[in-house]
Amino acid sequence: MDKLTLQKVHNLIKPYIHRTPVLTSQLLNTICEAEVFFKCENFQKMGAFKMRGAVHAILNLTDEQKRKGVVTHSSGNFAQALSLAAKSLEVTAYIVMPKNAPQVKKEAVKTYGGVIIECDSNINARESGAARIQKEKGATFIHPSNDDTVIYGQGTAAIELLEDYSDLDYIFTPVGGGGLLAGTILAANHFSNTCKVVAGEPKAVDDAYRSLISGNIEKNETSNTIADGLRTYLGDRNFPIIKKHVEKIIRVEEDEIINAMKLIWERMKIIIEPSSAVAFAAVLKDKKKIKNKRIGVIISGGNVDVSNLPF
Amino acid sequence: MDKLTLQKVHNLIKPYIHRTPVLTSQLLNTICEAEVFFKCENFQKMGAFKMRGAVHAILNLTDEQKRKGVVTHSSGNFAQALSLAAKSLEVTAYIVMPKNAPQVKKEAVKTYGGVIIECDSNINARESGAARIQKEKGATFIHPSNDDTVIYGQGTAAIELLEDYSDLDYIFTPVGGGGLLAGTILAANHFSNTCKVVAGEPKAVDDAYRSLISGNIEKNETSNTIADGLRTYLGDRNFPIIKKHVEKIIRVEEDEIINAMKLIWERMKIIIEPSSAVAFAAVLKDKKKIKNKRIGVIISGGNVDVSNLPF
Repeated sequence: MDKLTLQKVHNLIKPYIHRTPVLTSQLLNTICEAEVFFKCENFQKMGAFKMRGAVHAILNLTDEQKRKGVVTHSSGNFAQALSLAAKSLEVTAYIVMPKNAPQVKKEAVKTYGGVIIECDSNINARESGAARIQKEKGATFIHPSNDDTVIYGQGTAAIELLEDYSDLDYIFTPVGGGGLLAGTILAANHFSNTCKVVAGEPKAVDDAYRSLISGNIEKNETSNTIADGLRTYLGDRNFPIIKKHVEKIIRVEEDEIINAMKLIWERMKIIIEPSSAVAFAAVLKDKKKIKNKRIGVIISGGNVDVSNLPF
Repeated sequence: MDKLTLQKVHNLIKPYIHRTPVLTSQLLNTICEAEVFFKCENFQKMGAFKMRGAVHAILNLTDEQKRKGVVTHSSGNFAQALSLAAKSLEVTAYIVMPKNAPQVKKEAVKTYGGVIIECDSNINARESGAARIQKEKGATFIHPSNDDTVIYGQGTAAIELLEDYSDLDYIFTPVGGGGLLAGTILAANHFSNTCKVVAGEPKAVDDAYRSLISGNIEKNETSNTIADGLRTYLGDRNFPIIKKHVEKIIRVEEDEIINAMKLIWERMKIIIEPSSAVAFAAVLKDKKKIKNKRIGVIISGGNVDVSNLPF
């Protein structure tokens, strides 16, 4: 993995993604006592950065593979991302989803052209559902976060951010499956001499924090956080990158996530999902350390049920 | 009023306002069967277009007047706009507000440096409160919408929109007090050869619609709309402009306002207030007429209590 490879990935996916804006707020700068630059992936196609990795993963397939389609198991943003990316590239996307997944999420996948395969609501059923589709259809399995092509794709958000603001001291991202964090680390290493990457993680699902300490991939006992995009865990492709290069992982409480989310909604007038608020909550928690620094924050997505808010 | 005057107004206020972005959404274009360009005044300083008129009104004062301060009676966006504009220009702003105004609105005015004068909750008390401050402090009264300097200031949002997209067929705005609508009409007349201006108005407070029919300024019997910024009525400075030039006024139901607001929140990931949704609700209602046209929509503001939503 070198700078040229990442640059090529970015050029490859550009026709299929938005170059999202970077927003700032004087008031939030005052609160943080730092300059904060928000990379707004909530404005990305389908509403989250996951579109980047999904597009790249599919573009990376052979024509033969593309003909047979792709499959993943997800009920969140990656299901929508893979569906829309596949549609844009005229590929079939099979999405294995639990029967009891919210209707709104099923509808979203259908809107983007994904083919839903229902399964029972447990990880075994999801994995065996995906395995069956791989066998039956010859479809290629794409993991939401633990896949090099996905990781490189996710890193392109930070490339754009550093193109716009080359002198950032830190970039903050949330960490869940680890694809965005690992991709951001690769981008920061290759596109900046000084920029360090910090992750925010909900304390309730602090597997990444504990993995850093133990040196092994840890799992979570519960998935009890409002940051629904971060309930997953790291994998063997992204963990080594994170372990080697992440500056630190800052754990945040649920009320800190909700407060950070509300602050951005009210002050910036943009809709961000709880997982995105985790990164900004980490900035607020790290205030002393980042004083007067230039901080990038990846706003990972904006897919939120506005009829069911935590405030 | 000529083009040069409006251009001068714009140049004069530029240092004190944001040039707000114009956003688009493929999905909303598909729904509208038209190309829609959203001028995002929800990202304006203090969260609404009213900043433009307030800044211009104060800049237009003599030094002597500036020394003595400005006064208005408002509990909404104009109170915050005049406070922040005055602060930016080192002028004192006296804001006459009903005692029972929500605490959150009082706090917002204080945050922006406004001096609150409490009064009883009726229009007589508000007007006499403002008159007293004019007398006691020598402060200049600035009306939120029925004032030429305010109207010209509000028109600068449409100037920017037409600078960015010169070939719009229509611009849609909400109409309440009429300052934004009148200003937008002046801008469209001077900065475009073809662009017509259409207003959206809540049916529950359709004074502007009825005024157009009767030819006189009509009042409302009730103020029973979710679009809290549009509960006011037209004045003798803006009504003649509207009467002469507005293409039409489209009345929208409360559920149409709420649906339009939710659609923009969910699809564009931006926070807009109900008054702004009135303009987009009018676009949706006028779908047949605007098919394949290029439509500007002024998103007037984003000041909303996110803990108290209609959906």
